Amino acid sequence: MEEKNFSMLCDFYEFTMSNGYFKNGFYKQNVYFDVFFRKVPDNGGFAIAAGLEQVIDYIKNLRFGDSDIEFLRSKKIFDEDFLTYLKNFKFTGDIYAVPEGTPVFPNEPIMTVKAPAIEAQLIETFVLLTFNHQTLIATKANRIVRSAQGRAVIEFGSRRAQGVSGAVDGARAAYIGGCVGTACTLTDKLYGVPAGGTMAHSWIQMFDNEYDAFKAYCELYPDNPTLLVDTYNTLKSGVPNAIKVFKEVLLPKGKTEFSIRLDSGDISYLSKKARKMLDDAGLHNCKITASNALDEYLIRDLMMQGAKIDTFGVGERLITSSSSPVFGGVYKLVAVENEGGEIVPKIKVSENTAKITNPHFKKVYRYYDNESGKALADELCVYDEVVDSSKPHTIFDPNASWKTKTLTDFTAKELLVPIFKNGKCVYESPSIQEIARFCKAQIELLWDEVKRFENPHTYYVDLSKKLYDIKNILLNVYGV
Amino acid sequence: MEEKNFSMLCDFYEFTMSNGYFKNGFYKQNVYFDVFFRKVPDNGGFAIAAGLEQVIDYIKNLRFGDSDIEFLRSKKIFDEDFLTYLKNFKFTGDIYAVPEGTPVFPNEPIMTVKAPAIEAQLIETFVLLTFNHQTLIATKANRIVRSAQGRAVIEFGSRRAQGVSGAVDGARAAYIGGCVGTACTLTDKLYGVPAGGTMAHSWIQMFDNEYDAFKAYCELYPDNPTLLVDTYNTLKSGVPNAIKVFKEVLLPKGKTEFSIRLDSGDISYLSKKARKMLDDAGLHNCKITASNALDEYLIRDLMMQGAKIDTFGVGERLITSSSSPVFGGVYKLVAVENEGGEIVPKIKVSENTAKITNPHFKKVYRYYDNESGKALADELCVYDEVVDSSKPHTIFDPNASWKTKTLTDFTAKELLVPIFKNGKCVYESPSIQEIARFCKAQIELLWDEVKRFENPHTYYVDLSKKLYDIKNILLNVYGV
Repeated sequence: MEEKNFSMLCDFYEFTMSNGYFKNGFYKQNVYFDVFFRKVPDNGGFAIAAGLEQVIDYIKNLRFGDSDIEFLRSKKIFDEDFLTYLKNFKFTGDIYAVPEGTPVFPNEPIMTVKAPAIEAQLIETFVLLTFNHQTLIATKANRIVRSAQGRAVIEFGSRRAQGVSGAVDGARAAYIGGCVGTACTLTDKLYGVPAGGTMAHSWIQMFDNEYDAFKAYCELYPDNPTLLVDTYNTLKSGVPNAIKVFKEVLLPKGKTEFSIRLDSGDISYLSKKARKMLDDAGLHNCKITASNALDEYLIRDLMMQGAKIDTFGVGERLITSSSSPVFGGVYKLVAVENEGGEIVPKIKVSENTAKITNPHFKKVYRYYDNESGKALADELCVYDEVVDSSKPHTIFDPNASWKTKTLTDFTAKELLVPIFKNGKCVYESPSIQEIARFCKAQIELLWDEVKRFENPHTYYVDLSKKLYDIKNILLNVYGV
Repeated sequence: MEEKNFSMLCDFYEFTMSNGYFKNGFYKQNVYFDVFFRKVPDNGGFAIAAGLEQVIDYIKNLRFGDSDIEFLRSKKIFDEDFLTYLKNFKFTGDIYAVPEGTPVFPNEPIMTVKAPAIEAQLIETFVLLTFNHQTLIATKANRIVRSAQGRAVIEFGSRRAQGVSGAVDGARAAYIGGCVGTACTLTDKLYGVPAGGTMAHSWIQMFDNEYDAFKAYCELYPDNPTLLVDTYNTLKSGVPNAIKVFKEVLLPKGKTEFSIRLDSGDISYLSKKARKMLDDAGLHNCKITASNALDEYLIRDLMMQGAKIDTFGVGERLITSSSSPVFGGVYKLVAVENEGGEIVPKIKVSENTAKITNPHFKKVYRYYDNESGKALADELCVYDEVVDSSKPHTIFDPNASWKTKTLTDFTAKELLVPIFKNGKCVYESPSIQEIARFCKAQIELLWDEVKRFENPHTYYVDLSKKLYDIKNILLNVYGV
């Protein structure tokens, strides 16, 4: 985790193409790539951008060492001049991106790279995998957090994550999405996401009986312990033993914060029964945590059934976003600079019309209604367009251009902010707590209709008239 | 990727429990943990064990540095003597595991750890996440490879992987499962999995037209280039341009190995049309590669429809095992040694009967029929049992003990092999090529019925009479 140089975490074709750009003289030519996605996971209404901090670290540390060069040379297809170029490689371009925690929508750039062709090409794989992974998990976490309606959600899933960074960076993204903490110690150490946790079944099994195990634990950790009550039988053994130990060990010390954790069986039924047993014993303060393959759908059902749960521990279905485990962000060439420095827009046409790209170096505006404060629409504009929010502004749906809307009392905010300028980082990443707060505040600016789990309202992502016209001209040229 | 110490990639409760074991004197007590799983992803008939080499590296490098200790101290709940113990921490136990590439089945140990309680506890999270991740991907890759019926499958998914190790170690696991290569350069550099790749759409877009892009590429890489033909229009532009360039640039040089790649549209239709166009042009040698969100189900359908595809590039649905993205391996205490050195079996009971564990320090036998060579059944035995294959051996289904089978002409093989002995690694990991070959050979020893995609035959994983009786005694004691 200390070694941050992931320069070789790169699809091999980035090297074959870059060698070709080098030989064909493109390597000095500035090109523009957009990162964007086409579909929100789980058919949701929005995603939450995450992963920028790790992309920044990657770019800052991007170097090819001797062993990398030697490895590439062994493939016997790369030009020695190209390998020398790689040896002195340094990212010198500009990067714009949306801040982490921003709600984002299909088909709008969440990052734009302007750099000489080889530099822009070589970062593709790492940039995509980092955004795709963390955006996926932040988005899923936020769905789960919203389903819990204010109850705390803790990320628990390291052991089921898809590899080391699936666990460590996934827990970071889950915190951005609204989880209050994680079980992953390394995520706390590296990123400051609060880690917590109490006991596994093995703790209970190490003792001669459950009562002794609970007693030893509460004596050692009298401040807010959580006892796992399902090792033998939740209602016949676990909860009664927990009540006994809370009364014998904690109450005499004046401790009133403690909880139990349910990890198997019917959580709704068990939580109600356990709540009653705790209340009957006078332990109204005792909280109940539930875990066991939970997700937003199960939590919503549990809430509807009146389950008595204060905290949800969510593992495998969050850390892998199991119901929708792929975030399909792509990295597409949108423009190149010609020798005169003119920016020439580029398009990728496709048999699948959804795969046609929005060309050109762009900016993204988000428009907020001044009365409600809510986000109304995003608009993709050509880089040199400026929207004056003091005047009425008409936007239209690019898929149905007769559908227009004129904004009057509104505020326009640019979503893409400068991250690198001429290879130098000009952005300071906020703390993880600031990112999580920002995310929460931004989501409050979305209409509830966009936040529905099923069939959410499609938030408008429009094209400016200028961009729309450029796209159509290119489609007429390149559409065969 | 260089820094291999993942000691803090550990659920926080491993530390709270370990601190408790330390205070309660358990830390010198040897305990036994099993890694096993309960369900094969995608409802398949078997999984493929993978990840052992990374677990070995982890154990070898397991240390707590000053910053780790300082971090834990800042939590203000850990005993100073425990922190001193951690500072001098070293794994001193024994580990047994199945070799990578072994087909494995639910409820049998794929790894057993015997170590002092704290040591065994602290490795839980990393061990599980590594086995769970790589076993998941190896298992999925093998399904996809089997669906391709001998056509090559290449792993393509880094950009959609769940984080850095999702990509890098995932590509390693995919190779174990039968992929012939990967697009991930770092997986080649680190593990020797052959990486390859040619061009993205951006290569085409960088040139004034598709023809120029193809020509430049073939001039640079005349040995077996693959041209991506769907940037503008596959049949009207991509394939004709490819044919032209192959004829103009490659054939005159005597080059006869080249291919095209289809990445959008209806792959079945396009492949047949493209094949005909290539054949009509006399390019019978030209191969066709297909990609675009493929998995075992789509490939099976393409094969049934007679699609003309020689190589499949499989990305997001392989690297995330998207139709079944969680491998549910668990780590359960199965025995403890008492003061006299006696091994005392332990059980975890549960309201969910599927969650009841198989107690005790065990060995796993796999029985092969000498006539057909096929694997007949696995049997979990107590560690001190020995099966003599020169005599008839009767096994029975633990869930229906009247169902018995007597093996006569058979070979017995122990699956778990020693990996660590008293903290010292006694196992040399085979090369990745050897693992992949071993895996392929082992899968050939399974009956076709176990390999069915839907409703596979349930392979027998039985308990010896001795183990069965011990489990029932414990259930009577602890089942409340």
